[in-house]
Parts: sequence; C-alpha cells; structure tokens
Amino acid sequence: MKNNFSKYQGLGNDFIIFDARSNNLDHLFSKNKDNFIEHLCNRNFGIGADGIILILESNNKCFVRMKIYNSDGSEPEMCGNGIRCLIAFLNDNNEINELSEIPIETKAGLILTSIDCNENIKVNMGEPILSPLDIPTKLLMNSLKVPNGVITLKDQILNVYAASMGNPHMIVFVNDIEGIPFQEWGSFLEKHNTFPNDTNVHFVEIIDKSNIKVKVWERGCGPTLACGTGACACLVVTSKLGKTLNNANVYLPGGKLEVEWPNQSGPVFMQGPALKVFSGEIDI
Amino acid sequence: MKNNFSKYQGLGNDFIIFDARSNNLDHLFSKNKDNFIEHLCNRNFGIGADGIILILESNNKCFVRMKIYNSDGSEPEMCGNGIRCLIAFLNDNNEINELSEIPIETKAGLILTSIDCNENIKVNMGEPILSPLDIPTKLLMNSLKVPNGVITLKDQILNVYAASMGNPHMIVFVNDIEGIPFQEWGSFLEKHNTFPNDTNVHFVEIIDKSNIKVKVWERGCGPTLACGTGACACLVVTSKLGKTLNNANVYLPGGKLEVEWPNQSGPVFMQGPALKVFSGEIDI
Repeated sequence: MKNNFSKYQGLGNDFIIFDARSNNLDHLFSKNKDNFIEHLCNRNFGIGADGIILILESNNKCFVRMKIYNSDGSEPEMCGNGIRCLIAFLNDNNEINELSEIPIETKAGLILTSIDCNENIKVNMGEPILSPLDIPTKLLMNSLKVPNGVITLKDQILNVYAASMGNPHMIVFVNDIEGIPFQEWGSFLEKHNTFPNDTNVHFVEIIDKSNIKVKVWERGCGPTLACGTGACACLVVTSKLGKTLNNANVYLPGGKLEVEWPNQSGPVFMQGPALKVFSGEIDI
Repeated sequence: MKNNFSKYQGLGNDFIIFDARSNNLDHLFSKNKDNFIEHLCNRNFGIGADGIILILESNNKCFVRMKIYNSDGSEPEMCGNGIRCLIAFLNDNNEINELSEIPIETKAGLILTSIDCNENIKVNMGEPILSPLDIPTKLLMNSLKVPNGVITLKDQILNVYAASMGNPHMIVFVNDIEGIPFQEWGSFLEKHNTFPNDTNVHFVEIIDKSNIKVKVWERGCGPTLACGTGACACLVVTSKLGKTLNNANVYLPGGKLEVEWPNQSGPVFMQGPALKVFSGEIDI
C-alpha cells in the first residue's frame, strides 16, 4: 500500500512522520512485523531516521496523540525534538494557530506546546527532579540543593552534578569543551556506579550568564547532535548554581535551543526549531 | 523550486536520483553553491545518501548519460552499485527493455548494461588490470600471473594479492572472516607502502568453488557494505589461483553479487540487485 510521509528534523534529530488519523497504520506499526520499523529507519536500506512519529486521534481532548518509535523499534515516553517536529508538521499543514497553546497527548501524559511567528516551537518539558533518590543517583544534595560529588577518572578529579527531566542526566563543567577526551570520559561516566540506571552525560562550557555550550553523550547511544531533556537539565543546574540566569541559549552540536526555567517550583520550557526536509511516498 | 527525486539502493549503497533531462539541475549541481550536495546527502539534515545520480541526455549515442556525485561533493568516474540503481530507475519508469543491451555514458566512458526478467542488473565492468606497474603495487607477479607477496603485521605474516578494476584492490585470504581484527588490519593495509596510491582491502573466505565471502575496507572510507569493483577484483584473483571457477557468488555485508569472468582476456561482468526505496519531493 502506498503511503505518504514527511521527513522533519530538529537540531539534526530526524523523524519520519506518518499521519495515521484515517488509516490503519497504527496497527501495522504496533505489530512491527519483520522488524518493519528498524527497516524504515535504516539509513542505507530504508528511508533513514532516528525515529518514526505517528499522528493519531486523541482520546483525551488533546489536539492529537503522538506515538513515537525509536529506530530500534522501542517506544520512548516522550522526545523533545520529536514533539517539535510534530508541531512543525501540523503548522505546515495549517492545522494550528500561532501563539495558541496546543495540547499533545503522549505516553508521558499531556504536553503543552506552542509556536511563534518565527516558527520557533516552545515545549513545556515539565518540572525537573532534583531528589537523588528519584533521579536516581548516589550523589548527595549540596548546599545549593543540587546533587553533587566527585568522580575520579585516571588522574582527573571531576566535579559532577545531577538532575532528571524524567531521565537521568550528569552535568560536568569544563573550561574547553573541544579539548576534553570526550569518547573516553563519556563512555566511562555513562556507566558509573553513582547512577544505578546509568546516565546521559553533558559536558558544559559556560560562555556567559546567558549562553552555554554542551556536548552530549546519550545513554545507550553515545555522541548525539542534541538532547532536549539534557539541555533542560543543564539549565536547571547552571541556574541553581548561579552560573547562568534562569534562561539561556544552549548551543549543542546540532544547533541552538533556548531553555527557560522561570520559577524554580515550576516547569522548564524549551524552545527551538524544527524543519521539513522533504515529503515522500513509500510502498509499505 | 520543487523537484522530484527517487531514492534507490544496491546492496545498501544508496543514491538520490534526479532526472535532469529537461531542467537546469545539472547546472545547479555543478555549481554546488553552499555545499548543496553535501547538505542533500547529510543523513540528519538532508535526504541522506552515499551519493547523487543525475540522469542527463547523452551526446554520444548512448541511452543516457550518468553523472554521479559522492556525498562529499566529489565526482567519481564510475560506480558499479550506482549504475545498477540508474538502470533500475529507468526500468521502473518503463524506459528500457529486458534483455537488450543498454549503453550508458559515464565519465569513465561507455558502460554496457542489461536487466533480466528477475530484475537482476548486469554490468560490463571492463577488463581487470594485473600489471603491478599499472595497479600500482610493488608486489611482484607470481607464477600464476597474479601480483603477490607477504606483509608482516605485528606477529602475523599475511600473504596478499593485488588486482585493479580501474582502482587498486588488495586481496587477503582468511579462514574465518568474522574472526579477524578487521579494523586494525584494514586501516594498516590500506596505507601500506606496497601500494603507493593506497588501496581498497578485501578479506576473502572461500566457501567453495562457486561461493566466497568478502569483508570490505574501502580506501578513504573504511568499512562499507559493498564494493562492486572490489567484488570483481576478488573473483579475478580467486579464479586465477584456481580457488573458484570463473564465476562465483560474492557475499558482501550488504548482500550478494554474481561475478563472472568468462574469458581471461576479456571483461568482468557483475550482476546484482538495485531497488527503489521511496520517491519524494524536495524544495531546492
């Protein structure tokens, strides 16, 4: 059966989007016969993508329901770059209005989003988690209420911090992000026993109070171009420590996200681009 | 401007095909403004491919002219997997007939191709080169008229052979293709001084007289899923040495090619699949 799709990317994190509101694609993807999803995401034999997004009718008074599959066929609860791609798709199809709030149903619950006239998409990423037990991490709260401790790696002593946005993040401040042994530190820290479920690792260089540079080592993936929840976790820690204001530009290898945490007892907002790359038709 | 394209792959080597016979795309690609080609081939920010194929009118009594760009914007003379993708495209568009010979104009000259009723595409890959000076290699002809010698790598002594199909290939026979330190051997042998222009490296496991397994280390690329000229060079060497017949199935990581060298003073023929993945539309 011929099906239309669109390919979108947000900071280089790319998704194949199928509108599954009036067909039986959801059933087809749920079955994932013959590793169909892995094949579609394969960059040599398939369309190629980090994941697949299905747009479904919401049962829950939301605008639509988003279902995401990773390229390995697993189903994450939410994805910051993915949801921005979904909003860009709905906007390109004239389904939504600028400046109004667009509630999207996800496996992680209702997510509030909006798009401004510059086509920047803003996502309410929820409240950060700083309790060591809930992150989870063995690091202990410091006087500024951020989990903190030191980890020894060969002859280096690294001062590390932790925060969760539903998934665990370790933050390591460095003076020169390009000068670190990224591969070695990333792979070592991801599996360090202070994070019982392993962790995403972010190396952060402070440019000034409103700008930081981040290099991302994702749990189970290694180096990636961008991590939306990670960018939020970084801003939470830098603003708690007074290294930045409560909003900053986060420069990732794939591009820039604007992150804001206006109220320390409230949610973090992430804002950034998502763009259509092409539309296509495939026989599935 | 909106342009239609198709994505094809042959053994996982994938190409974006544009029909440029009745538009000014050739001009656009020749200029490659703002690294346009690299961007289109980028797998996160663009369509994603190993290369781009333009179909042009032939000035030379050929059926069409093929122009290929690598993902880095360079223009190779020919590509065995690419030309099969072009033939599959022309066949899917009902432009050619099965069993007739289809001459294609390339930068490497006229290439003769055909397609059978099983949609296997056969390409005349030209005559192999075994003269050490022309390959070029410092290995010397052995009694079976194949350049041959030993290379020492740590405590291993490797017996290696050479052949060219317009580009140099080193062939190393191994008992168990999965058991070798592929990365270490490949990167070392690619740059070995017995091949003054560096070389593609192929590790070959003989299954029987009609079947061989090959693991490919491409010059300047590292591991790839398939190398058409390399598969031909392997068959030339194995048939010269009596390890196979003059035709064999060559099992590569990306799939199977059938290679035949019917007459040792004539050309090598390579036969294999090429398939459409999807069609699309992009604004360029």
